[in-house]
Order: sequence, then C-alpha cells, then structure tokens
Amino acid sequence: MANNNKNNSHEKFKLKVKYLDIEAGKQIAVLNEQEATEMDMFLSDRIGLKYNSKDITVIVDTSKKMVNRGEILLYEEAAQALGLKGGEIIEIKHMPIPESIEYIKKKMDRRSLSNDEIRSIVLETVENKLSEGELASFIAGAYINGFTIEETVSLAKSMVDTGERLDLGVHPVADKHCVGGVAGNRTTMIIVPILAAAGVYIPKTSSRAITSPAGTADTMEVLAPVVVPIEEMKKIILKTHGCVVWGGAINLAPVDDKLIRIRHSLHLDPRGLLLASILGKKKAVGSEYVVVDIPIGRGAKIEDESDGKSLAKDFIQVGERLTMKIRCLITEGSDPIGTGIGPGLECKDILNVLKGNGPVELLDKGCLLAGSILEMVGKAPEGKGADMALNIVKTGKAYDKLMEIVEAQGGNPKVKIDDLPIGKYNYEVKADKPGRVSHVDNKAISRIAKSAGAPKDQGAGIILHCEMGDKINVGDTLFEIISNSESNLSYAAKMVDELKPVELQKVILGKFE
Amino acid sequence: MANNNKNNSHEKFKLKVKYLDIEAGKQIAVLNEQEATEMDMFLSDRIGLKYNSKDITVIVDTSKKMVNRGEILLYEEAAQALGLKGGEIIEIKHMPIPESIEYIKKKMDRRSLSNDEIRSIVLETVENKLSEGELASFIAGAYINGFTIEETVSLAKSMVDTGERLDLGVHPVADKHCVGGVAGNRTTMIIVPILAAAGVYIPKTSSRAITSPAGTADTMEVLAPVVVPIEEMKKIILKTHGCVVWGGAINLAPVDDKLIRIRHSLHLDPRGLLLASILGKKKAVGSEYVVVDIPIGRGAKIEDESDGKSLAKDFIQVGERLTMKIRCLITEGSDPIGTGIGPGLECKDILNVLKGNGPVELLDKGCLLAGSILEMVGKAPEGKGADMALNIVKTGKAYDKLMEIVEAQGGNPKVKIDDLPIGKYNYEVKADKPGRVSHVDNKAISRIAKSAGAPKDQGAGIILHCEMGDKINVGDTLFEIISNSESNLSYAAKMVDELKPVELQKVILGKFE
Repeated sequence: MANNNKNNSHEKFKLKVKYLDIEAGKQIAVLNEQEATEMDMFLSDRIGLKYNSKDITVIVDTSKKMVNRGEILLYEEAAQALGLKGGEIIEIKHMPIPESIEYIKKKMDRRSLSNDEIRSIVLETVENKLSEGELASFIAGAYINGFTIEETVSLAKSMVDTGERLDLGVHPVADKHCVGGVAGNRTTMIIVPILAAAGVYIPKTSSRAITSPAGTADTMEVLAPVVVPIEEMKKIILKTHGCVVWGGAINLAPVDDKLIRIRHSLHLDPRGLLLASILGKKKAVGSEYVVVDIPIGRGAKIEDESDGKSLAKDFIQVGERLTMKIRCLITEGSDPIGTGIGPGLECKDILNVLKGNGPVELLDKGCLLAGSILEMVGKAPEGKGADMALNIVKTGKAYDKLMEIVEAQGGNPKVKIDDLPIGKYNYEVKADKPGRVSHVDNKAISRIAKSAGAPKDQGAGIILHCEMGDKINVGDTLFEIISNSESNLSYAAKMVDELKPVELQKVILGKFE
Repeated sequence: MANNNKNNSHEKFKLKVKYLDIEAGKQIAVLNEQEATEMDMFLSDRIGLKYNSKDITVIVDTSKKMVNRGEILLYEEAAQALGLKGGEIIEIKHMPIPESIEYIKKKMDRRSLSNDEIRSIVLETVENKLSEGELASFIAGAYINGFTIEETVSLAKSMVDTGERLDLGVHPVADKHCVGGVAGNRTTMIIVPILAAAGVYIPKTSSRAITSPAGTADTMEVLAPVVVPIEEMKKIILKTHGCVVWGGAINLAPVDDKLIRIRHSLHLDPRGLLLASILGKKKAVGSEYVVVDIPIGRGAKIEDESDGKSLAKDFIQVGERLTMKIRCLITEGSDPIGTGIGPGLECKDILNVLKGNGPVELLDKGCLLAGSILEMVGKAPEGKGADMALNIVKTGKAYDKLMEIVEAQGGNPKVKIDDLPIGKYNYEVKADKPGRVSHVDNKAISRIAKSAGAPKDQGAGIILHCEMGDKINVGDTLFEIISNSESNLSYAAKMVDELKPVELQKVILGKFE
C-alpha cells in the first residue's frame, strides 16, 4: 500500500522532553499540532521514540498549546520506559504502519482472516500499537461481517498465548459458563462446591457486575476476598479442588480486556469475539470440560430458541478445536431464578440452598449443571449426574466444601446467614389487582435492584415473593426492595410504576352473558 | 434499550477539581480508576459536570495514579468552559447515553438512517459527545454497509448546518473539485483566474497535502498567504471574483474534520462520507455550479472507468438534492499532468501556462474544466467554453486576474518566475536503455517528490522530462529530482531504482530470423 507509507520515513527529528508525572493509561506522546503536521505526523500515527539504546512505539496526540514547538510531552508510562525525567533531547521518527491495519481493513472488506493475520492483530493490540478507532473498526468489522469458526479459534488461541496461564497438572479440570441475562441466576457458588466435593478441579473465574445488580464475583465477595493472584489461585485449587475468584484481577486475556472496553459503549457482542473471549479464558486456566448454560426466553439475553441452538453449536465446534469438551444446556430464562437479587440476598439464597432449604429452582438448576459435568468427566453415569449432585448437597458436603473454599480464599468459614449484610430499609410492592403472574421481567428487576444500590451496597436488591404462574390476590406482596440508603430505596420504588416488573393476567379474561 | 441506562443515574457525586493548564484537544475528564468503577462510570462514558449554573458533558478517561480519589482532573477546555481554576468542588453525574449511539448501531445492522437520525449523529459529534471508538464504528458501518443517496444528502445538509457559511449575495457562483490522485494536476490556479476574469464568482477552498507532495493550498502559498478568515475571503471574492485559500483554516464542516482524522488511519473513504464532505463544503460556500474532475486510469485514485461513471452519477444526484448543478468530467489520469511536481515547481508551470508557454497538457485541461463551467453558467455556448477559456489565457487576462487575487490575499503581484523558490540541488535520472515510455507512475512520482522534501521544502520535487509515448534513447534525461537538502535528494534518488516510476517498452519487442 504505497500511500500508506510515510515518504519522509528516513527523517529523524530531535525534540526536548516535557515530562508529566501522571499516568495517561496509554502509550501516547503529545506533539505541537503545527509542528507535527510539518513533520508529516498526524493524530493516531505511530511514532518511534529513541533515547540512548532504548526504543518504544507510541501513538501521536497533538495539541495547539500544551506543547511548544521543539518539545514532546510524555506521560509517566513512556517516560519511564525510556528512563526520562524531562529536559532530555530524544530522537523521534516515523514508524511503519502496524501490519494488522491491513487485516482490519480486510475484515471490513468481508474477507476471512488467516491465523497469522489474527495473531498479528492480537499482538499489536497487546503492544499498544493500535488506536481506539482502529480497534473499534476491527470490532465493527467482526460484528458486521462475522467470524468463521476458524477465525474464532485463531482469536481464542492468540488470546491464550498473550495472557497468563494456569497449569494445575491435575485431572479432570472442569468449568462452567453462563451466557447471562437472568436475574438471581447464581448457580456458580452451588456448582463449584458440588464438583470440588466430588473430586473435580474447577478453577472458576467470575466477573463483577457491569450492567447487572451483581456478578458472581460480587456475590462471592460477601463471603471472601475475590482478588486473588494466579499463584495463590493455584494453591487454593490444589488444596480444595475449587475457587470462585474475580477474573478481572488475573491477566488471562489482556487483549480481551482492551476489546471489551471498546465493545462496552456500543454494546457490541460479535459472536466470534464473544466465543473467543469465553473459551480462550477457559482454555487459559486449563479446563478440559465445560458446561455452558444458555438461558433463553422473553427478557433473557437470547430470546429465541433457534439462536440458542446455533450458539450452542458454535460453542461446541470452537471448544473441540481448542481440545475442550463442551456441553451446552439451553435453559428456561424468561423469569428470574432464585428469590434474592443483589450480592447479600443472593448469598443468602445460596447458603440456604446448600443447607437444604433455599429456592428449589436454584437448587434444581445448580444440580442439573453440576450433574452434567459429573457425567462428562465420568464421575456419574449418563442421566444420573443431577441425582449425584443433589446427594452431595443433601449430605452437607457441598456446604462444607464452599466453606473450605471461603476459608482458603481468606473468608470466615463460620459465617451465619444472619451475619450476611442485608439492607436496613425495605419497601414492599403489593398487588393492586388480582390475577395470575404471567411474566417477571429480568431487565426491570435488575434495574430496580441496581437503583436500590446493588452491587456497591452489598445489602441492596430485591426479594421476589412470587413467580410465574402464582395466583395473586389484591394486597399480596409481589416483591420487596431492600437498601441501606433511604434515598436509593425511594428512587428504586418510584421506578416500579414505570417498569412494571411483574405482569398479572386477569384470572377471568372475559365475561360473556 | 434498558441495559444501556445507568441505573444509579439519580446519584450525584462531588469531586475536587485538579486543573491542568494544558489543552487536551478533547472534552475529557480524568477520574480515579477505582473510584470511577464505584461510581458506575467507565472509560468512554459520558458524564455531566456542573458548577454554579454551568453544565457541560465530557467523556470519561480513567487513571490509576494521575488522579486521587475525590479528585477530578480537567484540562483547559473543560475548566475554561466552567470557569474553574482548580480547588473548586464540582458536581458530577451520569448522563444519558447519546441518542445517536442507537443510530450508529442501526447503520452497523445494515439499516438506513433517517434525516433526523443522521442529524443527531452530526450534532452529537460536534458537541464532543461521541468517543473516537464510537465515531470509528459509524465510519465502519458507513464503509461496510454503504450510504444511500438520501443518507448522503442528509449528512451533507447536517454538515452545512453545523459549520460556517459564506453568503456572497451574488451570481453565478461556481466551483471545481478534483477527486485527486494525479501528480502535478494543478488546474485550480488556472481555472480560478479564467472564471474570475469572465465574471464568474469562484470561492475556492483547497486542501494542503496529506499524502501527496503538494496540495493546491501548498502551491498557492508559494505566491500568497492561504490562511484567510471567512470574512476576509468574502471581501477578496467580491473584489476580484475569486480566491484560492486553505479550507482547513475555515470551519466549513467541523464534523467532517473530526471524521477525516479517524478515517485517515485506516484510509477509509466510504463514498457517502466522501460525497457529503465534498459537496457539503461546496454548498457551504454558496456554490451553484460545480465541475468535478474524475481522473481515471492506472495509478490514479480510481482505476476503472465504470467506477468513475458510477461516482459521477452519485455526484450529480446528491448535487441535485442540494440544489447544485454538477457536471463531472472523466479525464485521463494514468500519467502525471504538467511537468513540475512540488509547490514551487508546480507554480512555475502555472505561471508559464498563464504566460502562454507552459505544459500544453495542463493548459488544455485547465481550459476544458473552466470552459465547462462557462458553458454551465451560460457565459459560453455549449461546446465553446474551452475556446473562450483559452482566449482569456491568451489575452493575458487570466494571468492578470491571478495576480490581482494574489495581491488581494496579501502576496506580491509582481512576482517573477525566477523569484520562485526552486531547490538548489538536482539529480538527473537518465535512461539506461532505449524504448518508448509506456507508463509514468503517479504514486511513485509522488513518493519520490515527497522524499525530496515536498511540500515542506517548497522548492523540492520533480521535473518530468518525458511523457507517455515519448521515444527515449540511452542517456536521455527521464526526470530530475530537485531539493534544497542534499540528504533528502540522495534519499529520494535511492528510491528511483526500487520504485521505477518511468516504464520503458522496448521499441523492438521481438526479433525473428
């Protein structure tokens, strides 16, 4: 691409460093706008900085007044990398355009990328050589034109190769993933202790809430620290067979973290990037068997069954190519699972379930998913996994195992349900008409729980008092909103009328005389 | 889009301003990374800042160390907008997601955008509400999924409405545009004085070189200042009928400037954006008639005639909808036009042409394009425009008019060709074999001229001594490289062997006995 090359690329310029003792979060250098143009350097160009024997690549930012002619402004990262304190004269020069720009364009031009091309994009992303706009273009290309299974596998492999890895040296190693979107669907903390108690290793990394009232990491954090370095995680698993830690504290796929930050603002989840992100991280922790929960239904992330099936097929294919055995379970996801929504309230449900008296739906679903893995790894005959899982719960082994993990992660294994942080204030939402519950909306429930303060306020959230199919009379409590803040509570309460999270169908739909 | 909303959007936070007396070039606020997460604010989110009665929207940047908890770092733009000096306590809050995010996603989902939706994207871009990644996603969507004529017209209109406008209050107002890609194709400075001498108003804004060895603004700058405010531009045109100024100094389409900065790094020219950009700016200066030069051929921007025709059709349709009469001329663009490449050398060609002794090809092309406009505006009968234009040159009126414009823009109207800045050093490239010139490559010629120092070194560039079809003997000079820097000259000279800008075909292709 002749016109991509800077033609004065042989030219070197010398500039005086202006050092700013603050962190920019990116490898950038700020040049005087006018002077940059004269040097044939433009916003988002990559330039090379050289001082003594050290070389780094940075992205150009420009400013009219911030930097005088003859100066180059460096933030902490770049200055530190070159060992500069300000006042030094350094050499700057044009850098070749990153080769992956061509591949990003290729994907935008509806063509498939080879393994090497995807690896190049991943490497140059890790090396900070691509700008936000360039990464966004890659994501847009992947979103609009799609990724083949081959491309997805290449991306997952490159992600694994550029991140931290966990090598436990034991077998079998299993994992679970939920596609998400269902309120209160907190099965991980039930599945992990069941499997660990059965002798299956389960290196579970979970996420914190981004748009939901609680991520599994937020819920686990009620019981124990979840920011655990990878060496510590290894020790915990080898000792207890399991863990529930925050994935964000481990550098499993630094590329993915960069891509997610950009995907976030447009809510773009191109399937190839999603699959590579999920399965790459499972591969990085050494998982051999993975069960994937795909909830479908009205209000869930995936509403349509055929979409769920097609996603399941892709999960299995990509997993196979990464030498992982995947089983996908398409589950009912129209309504919330469990009764508590929010870190403390979900924790309460979980401890109750493991004590044998929590919401039946949550127990059933946890046993079903755990049972699937027990079948996959050969601990239970096909069709008998859920029974085995239920037995592990009933005998108290799962509860004891969770407390063993809690202790290993630094929490208090003697925690009582009454010790859990549950909000001081509550507001009961009552039925103003009779009817049968026809829908409980996941998104609306999540929004109200967030407004009440979850997950920052660990005690905030919702307790559901009804589920689909229940017959309701006027004045029955549909759900409670809980919070430690009166103002958050009243704000959340005000949202109920607008969002109508519980739909009632008239018992008598019509009357004919 | 329920999950797009920040659920704690009622919460307000108070932070202490840390002020940095430097310009960031963007409306951003830097928050402490950890604290931002707790406030449910993430990189690229929009937040509102309030101090006394003033409100602004900024985009979130985060830093681990640059900003302490309880602080918010503001660069000059944001601090100035709120009248802050540092140390003040301001209120910050979540802002609704810009509505245009939904439309950007819609375009990515292969759907067409309404006029109001495009206007929303343009307005929020001007208001700095969209991040680099979001704008890149819009460009990617436009590039991959294309723009309809309707969408292009909407974009052009919104661009005009959000920029500066020139209202001359006179008629006829004409303009010319060249799609570009042909070295030495410096017809503007011939066309403008011809038309102005004929009584046509021509408010010409030109660009500086981005990837070429000279833009028209760079070439005009050899004779007169080109950074001219819009009020001054109006006076000059009303006095002389014409001008040749740098478009970058006038805020005709601020949106376009933002989009171009992002398009630059991936070299993306989605047709809809390109047409809206070109014709929006013509509309903004009040043009009623526009002639568009579309050079096609090997090495030009457009290589294929059918692409050229389809582009011409779109130009005409969009122009019509913007109430401008467009005429497109598809011209031969395989080889350079004129003999000089680089600001000073092109200027020399132009002055020679207007004196009646420059490169014939440049004179012919300039008269053809100027003639087309003379026909469109009714100054010449159809088919007689070029003759009329040629006559204006031959009588010296075009030369005098150019000098009148040069003087009005602040240049020296008594400039002599020998006064032009032509590089001190030259290097002659000679033929090492006999043959007929079969191709002179635009891109290669441009790259060598840039390496010689053009456009920064106004005297640097290339003088062509041959054109396609010429019969060449061993030792004949094919072209000269000119520079004011010996090192640039030797670097440019070294590129000749690699780039082979002049191709010779053997006169005797085969010999049979």
